[in-house]
Formats: sequence, C-alpha cells, structure tokens
Amino acid sequence: MGKSLNPGSVIPLYHQLKEILKENIESGVWKPGDRIPSENELRKQYDVSRNTVIKALEELVQEGLLRREQGRGTFVSSPKISHSLTGFYSFSNVLKANGLEPRDVILGLEKRTAKPSIARHLKLTGSQEVWVLKRLRCAGEEPIMLETSHLPQHRVSRIEQADLENRSLYDYLEQKHGILVTRAKEIFEPVLIRDYESRYLRVPEGYPALLLDRIAYDSQGRPVEFCRSIVRGDRCRFYTELL
Amino acid sequence: MGKSLNPGSVIPLYHQLKEILKENIESGVWKPGDRIPSENELRKQYDVSRNTVIKALEELVQEGLLRREQGRGTFVSSPKISHSLTGFYSFSNVLKANGLEPRDVILGLEKRTAKPSIARHLKLTGSQEVWVLKRLRCAGEEPIMLETSHLPQHRVSRIEQADLENRSLYDYLEQKHGILVTRAKEIFEPVLIRDYESRYLRVPEGYPALLLDRIAYDSQGRPVEFCRSIVRGDRCRFYTELL
Repeated sequence: MGKSLNPGSVIPLYHQLKEILKENIESGVWKPGDRIPSENELRKQYDVSRNTVIKALEELVQEGLLRREQGRGTFVSSPKISHSLTGFYSFSNVLKANGLEPRDVILGLEKRTAKPSIARHLKLTGSQEVWVLKRLRCAGEEPIMLETSHLPQHRVSRIEQADLENRSLYDYLEQKHGILVTRAKEIFEPVLIRDYESRYLRVPEGYPALLLDRIAYDSQGRPVEFCRSIVRGDRCRFYTELL
Repeated sequence: MGKSLNPGSVIPLYHQLKEILKENIESGVWKPGDRIPSENELRKQYDVSRNTVIKALEELVQEGLLRREQGRGTFVSSPKISHSLTGFYSFSNVLKANGLEPRDVILGLEKRTAKPSIARHLKLTGSQEVWVLKRLRCAGEEPIMLETSHLPQHRVSRIEQADLENRSLYDYLEQKHGILVTRAKEIFEPVLIRDYESRYLRVPEGYPALLLDRIAYDSQGRPVEFCRSIVRGDRCRFYTELL
C-alpha cells in the first residue's frame, strides 16, 4: 500500500496503479469481499487524476478481480472458478470441486445435418445428422458458460430435453446409450463476449471470454461429441501441469 | 455459401452471418490467403445491411480469422500459432514447430526486491531479490507475446542482456547456472489487450489476449522462475489432451 507511482516511467500511470491494486489482491492484502478504498481516496493516496483511477478500476472489473456495487463501492471479487486441465473433467464436477452448485438451462435441442466443420471433427459424411444441444451452464443462479454440443445421431438415436434435466450429459450417454466418454481434445483461445452471448451470460459486451472447443471420444477412440463453449473470463481461470 | 439468414431467429443477423463466414474458414471452403467477397458482395448475397456485414467482419478480424489490407480487401488469415499444453514447452520451440523463427527483444533487465505475490510463488522471504527480465517475443518481425520473467537472485547470481541474445533463457540457466527446468505449472485466463501492451504487440486496444502465468521448477522441484505473459489471441491458440 505504501508504493508510489513514477510519473517519469514509460509505463502509463493507470497501468502502474492497476499493478499495485492487483498486487494487493494477489498477495492477499485485500481479501475477497473486502471493500477497497474509494476513487477519491485512491486519487489522494497516489496523487493521480480521477480518470487514472477510473481506468485502473475499470480494467480490474472487466478482468473479474473487482466488482462494483451501485451506491456501496468497489469490492474484491470472490476467487475465480478453477478449471484443471490436467485430466478429463466435466463442468458439473469442476463446479462441485469449487464448492458451487451446477445448474443447466437447456436453450435448444434439435436434429440437423452436420455443418462440414463439425462433420469433420465427428468423422461423419456430408449428409449425416447430429443432435444440437444448446445449454446455459450456471453456478447456482450465475451463468458461467454458453455451450453447444453436437452428438452424432447414428450413435444417439433419440434424445429429449427431459433426459437431461438434473443429469449430466455424460451420465446420460453412458446410462441410456452405452457410450462411455473417456478422453477429449480441447482447443481454446481468448475471445470477447459478444452482444448475443452477453444477454445470456449477463456480462457486458467486450468483456474477456474463452472459446473452448472439445472433441470427446468414447472408450474405442471414436469421436462422440463436438462441443463449442464461450466461458466467462471474469469468473473462470484454467490451470495445468506441464511435465 | 448457399446458406441464407433467418430474420425471425432470436440470433441476431450479424451473428448468423459471422457463423456462416466462420464455417467457410473452418471447413476450408476459404483458405488462408484467400480474398473473401467484398462488403458489397456479402450485403447482396445475404440481403443484409452494410452495418450487419461490417459488424460480422470486424469480430472475425478481432478474433484473428480475417485480416484487412487497406485498399485491397479482406483476407483469410494464416493459421494461428498452435501451442500444445500436453507437455513442457519453450516458446522458441513452439514457434519452430509452427515453422516460424523465434526472435526476442529484451525490453528490460533489473534486480529488485520481489513483490509479495511473486515471493510466494518462488518461495522467497520478503527481502529477497529477483531478476526481472522483460522481453517481447516475436515470430520473425511479428510481436506475439509480452513476457516478464522473475528469477531468484540467490539461484541466478548475475545475468546480463548479452547472455540472452540468440539463446533461450532455459538453455542459459542450464549452461551457466546448472539449473535444469523440467516442469511447470501454468495458469491462464482471457483478458484484453490494454493500451500499454498494444504499443508493443501492435494490435488495437481491446483485442482478445491470454494472460499466462508460469511457475517453472528445477529437477529438485524448486521454483526457479515466475513468468507472466500477455499472448495475442488473434495469433495464438492452445490445445491439450485430457485423459
């Protein structure tokens, strides 16, 4: 907290201030739920303009480290949901491991001819059909990711919304269709929340997100699901071990 | 290409158009380097407004799938650099595996007392010093990531810029300091390119990026580097296998 800014640096003041505030959070000086000093207090403490303070705070809000409460102030956010990429996971289990309750909202379920890019991932021919299942996946009441699964119809002959209420997709595939999902490839890249997704995920357009593509395989190594998700970056982080 | 848009859908037209253009790229109908139809042609072909076309194209440019050339048109980008997270990697080797030439620009090297959050990652006490090495890592002439490494001074007594010219940091640590880096933990989350980073990475502010934290360990399991990077999302993607 005793740090001061260096106006002579090539690093802009708002960025220096942001780094100091971030360090307070990362080092545990400020804990989740703490209210941080007001804009005015920060302005005086670091001898900077109001705009400098606003810009530093705004970026930390976008990145999910701080949250604002109208009329109450700015608070340190609860820790992000940690996804381990060290082994096969289901999103429901990731939430449970983070002490959160998984809840899904089914937004759509229909049978369609597979798009060429999806047919290629699932090793289908041009005219084969897939079930397209669109779900909003939540932690309790809070939407976390928007997910679209594609399942080959020749493996999953029939599927209904009721089949997936209060049950994980992978449990359903195993119990009803004898498909045991045992491994997956995932590809991810950072993107932005777009207005279309923003309505479901309830974060402003332009916030950071992860685009996550998963190809899941059964125990015989056949692709059984292609899934594309948009994950809120202000609420999730991923980690892995590299050996 | 024969797809048409559905004005009655809850999915906005620009998003439907974006998905069609994206599918053309992902399925290989359009190949890297191809010039895509002009705004006017797309407007006529899909019977949409100019704004709808502009918005769809702009998002695909931000996400790195398309690039614009002033006065020449819009082109399919070359494929993103693929980082495998299936095992320990060095960025230099990732570039070489993608057929690109690694090149580093050293932006700063100095000795400092470790910040508390970094001291914790490196298991240092409050007053211990670290070398802070800031590098812009490029593929040929193109900047790809902005990286800040922290190395404990009690393990790396002295380091100079010249030591790292045309040599990977890990080769240097092994050859000069007998430190063999054998594994790492990585934590990543999507963020936005900020104006400060934008100047180095030469992409507009607000473009998607990945914040990547790495803690690297030597063969005895001691942490020897904490490294924080900002990676261009329009040029990089990551993949892993989950077993």
